[in-house]
Amino acid sequence: MPAPPLPPELDDFLVQPNPAVIATVRPDGSPHAVPTWYEWLDGRVLVNMDESRSRLGHLRRDPRVAITILDAGSWYSHILIRGTVVEIRPDPDLADIDRLARRYLGRPHRDRGRRSITALIESEYWFDWGVLAGG
Amino acid sequence: MPAPPLPPELDDFLVQPNPAVIATVRPDGSPHAVPTWYEWLDGRVLVNMDESRSRLGHLRRDPRVAITILDAGSWYSHILIRGTVVEIRPDPDLADIDRLARRYLGRPHRDRGRRSITALIESEYWFDWGVLAGG
Repeated sequence: MPAPPLPPELDDFLVQPNPAVIATVRPDGSPHAVPTWYEWLDGRVLVNMDESRSRLGHLRRDPRVAITILDAGSWYSHILIRGTVVEIRPDPDLADIDRLARRYLGRPHRDRGRRSITALIESEYWFDWGVLAGG
Repeated sequence: MPAPPLPPELDDFLVQPNPAVIATVRPDGSPHAVPTWYEWLDGRVLVNMDESRSRLGHLRRDPRVAITILDAGSWYSHILIRGTVVEIRPDPDLADIDRLARRYLGRPHRDRGRRSITALIESEYWFDWGVLAGG
């Protein structure tokens, strides 16, 4: 099984503002999956969510996640990253969500009243389906 | 919590060839998530995979799945469907994968040697994030 570090070409892909879906485990053991913004930090994945999101409770209970990062030009091509949440922290100044919003939308986050939470995921496994091959 | 049947407007969305990601549970209880083609069949979701795919083993062990169906024009908008696999069957004539390939690519599936397996998922819960609101 491939393991970190990723080849530089995949790094070049992961730093782009790609569509992504994060999968978590619900309290009953069934899966949950929703789109997410992310930031790639050399082997770690940063995600941010409103405090009210159900996936935050999932991550606190079971820190194991899968993130599927889609190639925006050919969505079936993807990088799968599996890993574990190693840190959950408040984002009181909205610095993390603002950086994500700038990355994806080119502007700061609009909802300034958001109770913003950041999770850092340590990558433990990755798989490339078609990204390096060009779809 | 919303439950089936879905409003007709969501039906109109779901019958389109949207990007989708299917999440399953691995034997160790951690999540797995990969892009998938799907077909919406009035409350059921049909997916198809090569016999060698790891998610087939997951589905046989634990039939609970989540499918996130992305709005191709605005991927953060999505419909989340949670459900249970109620049937797993071979697709010996490739009828199901051909129908999916026509739906997504406009042509039959290229790999005629594929050992093709179909799973039918009964929808038990759905959630609309921005699809009806237009992103």
